[in-house]
Amino acid sequence: MEKLFQYNRGKYDVIVIGAGHAGCESAFASARMGKKTLLLTISLDAIALLACNPNIGGTGKGHLVREVDALGGEIGRIIDKSVIQIKMLNTSKGPAVHSLRGQADKNLYQRVMKSTLEKQENLDLVQGEVVEIFVENNMVKGILTNTGAIYEADAIIIATGTYLRGRVFIGEINYESGPNGLFPANRLSYCLKDLGIKMRRFKTGTPARVHRDSLDFSKMEIQPGDEEIIPFSFMTESLDIEQVPCYLTYTNEETHKIIRDNISRSPMYAGEMEGVGPRYCPSIEDKVVRFAEKTSHQVFVEPEGLDTCEMYVQGMSTTFPEDVQIKMYKTVPGLENVKIMRTAYAIEYDCIDATQLKRSLEYKEIENLYFAGQINGTSGYEEAAAQGLVAGINAVRKLNGEDPLILDRSQAYIGVLIDDIVTKEIYDPYRMMTSRAEYRLTLRQDNADLRLTEIGYNIGLATKERYEKMINKKKEMEREIGRLKKKIITPNKEINEFCERIGTTPLKTPTSMYDFIKRPEITYDILKEIDDERPELTREARIQVEIEIKYEGYIAKQLKQIEQFKKLEGKKLSEDIDYSQIKGLRLEARQRLNSMKPESVGHASRIAGVSPADINVLLIYLEQQRRLNK
Amino acid sequence: MEKLFQYNRGKYDVIVIGAGHAGCESAFASARMGKKTLLLTISLDAIALLACNPNIGGTGKGHLVREVDALGGEIGRIIDKSVIQIKMLNTSKGPAVHSLRGQADKNLYQRVMKSTLEKQENLDLVQGEVVEIFVENNMVKGILTNTGAIYEADAIIIATGTYLRGRVFIGEINYESGPNGLFPANRLSYCLKDLGIKMRRFKTGTPARVHRDSLDFSKMEIQPGDEEIIPFSFMTESLDIEQVPCYLTYTNEETHKIIRDNISRSPMYAGEMEGVGPRYCPSIEDKVVRFAEKTSHQVFVEPEGLDTCEMYVQGMSTTFPEDVQIKMYKTVPGLENVKIMRTAYAIEYDCIDATQLKRSLEYKEIENLYFAGQINGTSGYEEAAAQGLVAGINAVRKLNGEDPLILDRSQAYIGVLIDDIVTKEIYDPYRMMTSRAEYRLTLRQDNADLRLTEIGYNIGLATKERYEKMINKKKEMEREIGRLKKKIITPNKEINEFCERIGTTPLKTPTSMYDFIKRPEITYDILKEIDDERPELTREARIQVEIEIKYEGYIAKQLKQIEQFKKLEGKKLSEDIDYSQIKGLRLEARQRLNSMKPESVGHASRIAGVSPADINVLLIYLEQQRRLNK
Ligand SMILES: Cc1cc2nc3c(=O)[nH]c(=O)nc-3n(C[C@H](O)[C@H](O)[C@H](O)COP(=O)(O)OP(=O)(O)OC[C@H]3O[C@@H](n4cnc5c(N)ncnc54)[C@H](O)[C@@H]3O)c2cc1C
Ligand SMILES: Cc1cc2nc3c(=O)[nH]c(=O)nc-3n(C[C@H](O)[C@H](O)[C@H](O)COP(=O)(O)OP(=O)(O)OC[C@H]3O[C@@H](n4cnc5c(N)ncnc54)[C@H](O)[C@@H]3O)c2cc1C
Repeated sequence: MEKLFQYNRGKYDVIVIGAGHAGCESAFASARMGKKTLLLTISLDAIALLACNPNIGGTGKGHLVREVDALGGEIGRIIDKSVIQIKMLNTSKGPAVHSLRGQADKNLYQRVMKSTLEKQENLDLVQGEVVEIFVENNMVKGILTNTGAIYEADAIIIATGTYLRGRVFIGEINYESGPNGLFPANRLSYCLKDLGIKMRRFKTGTPARVHRDSLDFSKMEIQPGDEEIIPFSFMTESLDIEQVPCYLTYTNEETHKIIRDNISRSPMYAGEMEGVGPRYCPSIEDKVVRFAEKTSHQVFVEPEGLDTCEMYVQGMSTTFPEDVQIKMYKTVPGLENVKIMRTAYAIEYDCIDATQLKRSLEYKEIENLYFAGQINGTSGYEEAAAQGLVAGINAVRKLNGEDPLILDRSQAYIGVLIDDIVTKEIYDPYRMMTSRAEYRLTLRQDNADLRLTEIGYNIGLATKERYEKMINKKKEMEREIGRLKKKIITPNKEINEFCERIGTTPLKTPTSMYDFIKRPEITYDILKEIDDERPELTREARIQVEIEIKYEGYIAKQLKQIEQFKKLEGKKLSEDIDYSQIKGLRLEARQRLNSMKPESVGHASRIAGVSPADINVLLIYLEQQRRLNK
Repeated sequence: MEKLFQYNRGKYDVIVIGAGHAGCESAFASARMGKKTLLLTISLDAIALLACNPNIGGTGKGHLVREVDALGGEIGRIIDKSVIQIKMLNTSKGPAVHSLRGQADKNLYQRVMKSTLEKQENLDLVQGEVVEIFVENNMVKGILTNTGAIYEADAIIIATGTYLRGRVFIGEINYESGPNGLFPANRLSYCLKDLGIKMRRFKTGTPARVHRDSLDFSKMEIQPGDEEIIPFSFMTESLDIEQVPCYLTYTNEETHKIIRDNISRSPMYAGEMEGVGPRYCPSIEDKVVRFAEKTSHQVFVEPEGLDTCEMYVQGMSTTFPEDVQIKMYKTVPGLENVKIMRTAYAIEYDCIDATQLKRSLEYKEIENLYFAGQINGTSGYEEAAAQGLVAGINAVRKLNGEDPLILDRSQAYIGVLIDDIVTKEIYDPYRMMTSRAEYRLTLRQDNADLRLTEIGYNIGLATKERYEKMINKKKEMEREIGRLKKKIITPNKEINEFCERIGTTPLKTPTSMYDFIKRPEITYDILKEIDDERPELTREARIQVEIEIKYEGYIAKQLKQIEQFKKLEGKKLSEDIDYSQIKGLRLEARQRLNSMKPESVGHASRIAGVSPADINVLLIYLEQQRRLNK
């Protein structure tokens, strides 16, 4: 590469590279917390591109959106402004796994994000490809763009998604490319390697986009939105939108036969791809091969927006060549005459091994260099946004000389996500799931504001208005719970008629409303009829009251576990402990601990290769140190 | 290039390659005229991209839009649905040069075009890059895409714009790329060369996009839209939009000094670009060098849309490196603190020598292969749309065994444009201008419907509704002109008071209203006061009435010239005349005529290298042939 003319284009406190879902949150956080911020991205026309599914949220992911929102992030508000269908998932299950999902008008989502960025104070949005990061004395100094501009910076956040050395695969064909026909970023990838950063190669895929008018919806099940529309953001009062439906259909034996007959033409199986794909969003050929016993898989057909006829075919992501794609799609009921507008493809890209990061998302070896999003080996818009927010906050706090914001596993899904990726070595794209959160009964999507708004407010990101709204909800709910505890219902004819009507056993002794609600047949709302003093609560507060009462026992138990957990998290391990010197630790544990430098005993306990016995040794060691220091 | 797996993806009557401004019109025309049509394009997200200025129309170009509309094309309706400011230009001059210009909301323009395409019957819109054209026995057979799909076709229209072997230049930096960070199309360019097509290398440039909030509009002149909003399409009844302003500022000596001091860093001047740029949309460095005596140039600052802060800086297109761009922009009043969001760049691309085409836009050497748009060496959205429409119509007519639609220079700007590019060898990107039309007093934008709707209707493209609307307007206008001729005003006190009031000499003898309107101080509208029988006319009819009366003499003269012109156009020259055998023709004329194969003596007379004496020889030759054949 010949040396280009370079010039200095100015200095920023924080530079964010990449205006994807991670980078946008980083930029908002940094600018709103008062730092002069630059957001550089390859194409201003591809900001916050929903490169795959046209929806935000879903199981586990909906939690992340609400947490980011509670802390003062933007994703929740953007989807609220561009949503065309809302659904609360898993409502037949317990409240821990309720998750909000919203279908987005894809193009509108991007436009709203872009214009919100453009209007953000302290933030400059500039098109450009970053090709080099400058580091001096293990400290970031600035960056170089492909047009020769040098920007100096005190902190840098890399949020480059799937663009680094991107390569697209469609059957026998593959070529260098970012997602969606955009340019890949190769030079930055080489630069990161030169900085000594350990890279991985992952892959992901997307299904075809098909023309609405070529589908026969009468052969599919209609999937309408919820009647009651619940917004994502705690700041959105209400959403008045016309919802559009999605559709459900299924693959069948014929589909699977085509897949099996052509499996050698899938580059994933032909051994042409080195990248590792997401275990939990497999391609259709993967599903058919791995779950050979299943004779059918779900296929959701979802609109990509209000003013386009393109539809997304969820469940049919594939790396088959185009001819096989067409044949295979046509076997699905309702898709017999399908017209494909965009071909399905897979993309392989470089990402980093995130165990090289601290829990603040700072790279351990270079100060003020942060990583967020898919570059860290995760997958998904929401996962990206969550990391982007944390990286943005922590870059600012570092520059301010403050401790990083670290949410632990008992505080937030965000904490679980980051703890997982920096602790466990990840061999395939990481995706959030409710099952990853041990304390999921307390980490609900409905109480994300109660859990996190105060934190967001204290670090200067959540606004006062947001904080006060949360406080009001909390007070409302506590007052009502107090009232319900004191309010005694005495058994009488009227009450027992009520009991009979709703199918619960008659009351025998005077009982508080509070205890009465715990009965499985009773809901807080049903009791309104016999509750003459009931105040008008907001919907949000009503939900909290009911969950807090009904799940009191489980929640109390979980809070105990969290206390235990916090004890180990509280036992801090200094960065300069030399584990090879601690007697009693097994060799593997010594190596792993020395390379990972966990921040606490709790953290250490989650590192693969560190056994409970090793943890005991660590605890003893800490106790010895404490006595020595006295 | 290794041989890829290929498969047959079906057969179409007409395949259009490229969904730019040309390709979209071709596709609509073909589909609406009943042909099964496929529109293939590299990116579904870049359909009808306004890659440079965010406006449609302007001097000469506004005429093209109205003509395309009158024939049943789409561009006029699309801009009407996405316009954010309307201005009739040159209203201080004669009606021949009045031209409508509309600022577009760029993203909305694309969305409206895309969704209109998606909903068009007979039309399939598919993302894909065409890499090869199949030809057998000098007849097109089909195409191959980069994903191995073969589509058979009876006719093919190539409308690939600036993508063929595109290369972007920014100062010392240059790289392979289509416009706006999109992928270039290299393989199709090689394929065209292999087919024996003579190629050219042209270039064009675009200015930076800047952030609205970084500008000081108080230092610029505001340019509001017109109070009376006139739509582009004859089918749009009225437009009710909130208009946004543009702004005017100027370069100065300081700007020009920076340009001169850095001229060696502009690749145009450093001799690094082989392409030839548009003479009439020069870069700012070009303007400063070529018009060294001018101390200032106009700079229009225009919004790129309603929901973006990006602004377009018309007049400051450049190939300077980024650092010079920034320095230079900052010298312009109002741009002192400018923040550039997208860097200015130039693009060099392959296009064809359009003299290889017939006036139907069919390539002379391969049947059913058409070319339209910037690939033909033109520049501009409207020029592209006009050609796209004609190519689409003619591909269909050819398949139907009908004569091509050829508009001559007296019928339409479209005729002038196509006659120019297929006749004159063009050495820089061709742009429409009113001065190119010899019969411009009759080829007005206001009467495009009267001139062309019937043609559009007869070929099956303009709808019946459109045709009837035009007929009504025509009748209304003729009736009114008739009435005005008969209506006599006799001089009396009231009339002469009126004359005095509006500053025209008193009436001496009885005069028809018709003749009275010819006085320079009188307009049709003013006369309303003394015209008790005046019917309510539409705005369009009123304008026609006035122009037809006021310019009667000039128009009559022009119609005479057109008759002369038509005579020569009517003298057809058969394709198989061997000009080398015609005695009396000069050598150069023989060569040029043999290579161009003009369609008529008129056409021949416009070929460079053919003299009036040669034309006389041709006329005598034709007369001899006529006698011989008797
Ligand atoms: C084909 C495909 C399939 C997918 N399938 C799924 C799925 O099934 N399930 C799922 O959960 N997720 C899926 N995803 C993932 C989802 O799109 C990403 O997880 C999410 O977009 C990541 O957000 P991000 O902000 O990390 O990166 P991105 O959204 O990719 O954004 C990265 C940004 O960085 C910019 N950039 C990159 N390099 C540079 C540079 N050098 N200089 C300047 N800017 C740069 C880019 O222009 C872009 O704006 C898929 C993605 C793709 C592409
Ligand atoms: C940087 C720049 C500056 C310009 N400046 C000016 C100016 O100052 N004044 C002016 O009047 N005009 C200017 N223009 C020109 C204007 O943009 C074009 O004239 C107009 O867009 C041409 O329309 P088109 O339909 O011919 O091509 P385009 O609008 O370029 O569309 C071509 C289409 O073909 C598709 N395509 C290309 N190759 C293939 C393939 N192999 N397979 C499938 N699809 C393919 C592309 O994806 C694209 O959709 C400029 C253009 C650019 C890029």
